[in-house]
Amino acid sequence: MRLLLDMDGVIADFEAGFLSHWRREHPEKPFIPLEERNTFFIVDQYPDDKDLVRAIISAPGFFRTLEPIPGSIEAIRQLEEFHLELFICTSPLTNYRNCVLEKYEWVEEYLGADWVGRIIMTDDKTVVRADFIIDDKPEIKGVEKPSWKHIIYDLPKNRSEKTKPRIDWRNWKEVMLSLGMIRIE
Amino acid sequence: MRLLLDMDGVIADFEAGFLSHWRREHPEKPFIPLEERNTFFIVDQYPDDKDLVRAIISAPGFFRTLEPIPGSIEAIRQLEEFHLELFICTSPLTNYRNCVLEKYEWVEEYLGADWVGRIIMTDDKTVVRADFIIDDKPEIKGVEKPSWKHIIYDLPKNRSEKTKPRIDWRNWKEVMLSLGMIRIE
Repeated sequence: MRLLLDMDGVIADFEAGFLSHWRREHPEKPFIPLEERNTFFIVDQYPDDKDLVRAIISAPGFFRTLEPIPGSIEAIRQLEEFHLELFICTSPLTNYRNCVLEKYEWVEEYLGADWVGRIIMTDDKTVVRADFIIDDKPEIKGVEKPSWKHIIYDLPKNRSEKTKPRIDWRNWKEVMLSLGMIRIE
Repeated sequence: MRLLLDMDGVIADFEAGFLSHWRREHPEKPFIPLEERNTFFIVDQYPDDKDLVRAIISAPGFFRTLEPIPGSIEAIRQLEEFHLELFICTSPLTNYRNCVLEKYEWVEEYLGADWVGRIIMTDDKTVVRADFIIDDKPEIKGVEKPSWKHIIYDLPKNRSEKTKPRIDWRNWKEVMLSLGMIRIE
């Protein structure tokens, strides 16, 4: 049983990190509270300030200083006990210059050096073979019909997607049990 | 038809790059000529100087300044005309700090921004679904029975492997025709 874990929005708290930078760097501008974020890409909800948004998320240190999604690291530590094959499957920004290395460093800091070898960095996740992927993107496209089943990591911004199973780091054990991903003996 | 291209030793001239640094930085030490390189990992052929070897290949700029393998870029440009699905599938060094970003920058410089989106960076290539991989490593191991057929990119260091088909950027068209990877209409 192989499980791919997306990074931004699933393990690393991209949305909270962005909002914190935005409010600090542009205190005079309106902001979208986390619960009201309803587009997958942040720029689409800041249509008049796309370049300012892009400047924040592609700046040196942005990815490196993201906080873990609450509960994610603890859940992954427990998941390791279930002997799933776990990989992190993450896509870089188009402006890749800072995020690529910072994602590696982040994984080493929060999950340890062993986990660096479990990073799969790819724009196209459909070519990676696995049984499941946990990802906050409503629809994952690429060149291939995916081998994995997509479980949505539940966030306000992806709730328009109504058909796929949902998970978060509070209910993960129940969801994984119900999908047959783990078994309690 | 999806083809994965390994990067070091197949597109980027890792061996020539190392040798040039080695001779410049350690002119007093013996060196292994390219034709006599017979271990997959360089350190194994410099057993008394492993740390010096590692210092070179993990230094800032090492990957960024590698030359393309002669003929590789031209061959890839021709390969694009055959409408194969092409991806670059490359593993970072364990000491990933410099190579990760530099590999992305290298691909952008030599193949263009479009190709950055075709990079799959992973320690485990067996989980990537494809029809073929061209890789200079004699045996590619990982968690999965690979879906791809392995074609060895011919280098002196991998000639002890006798069973797999071999290719280089001089004979690639003949080899690919004979394996049914391309067709001339």
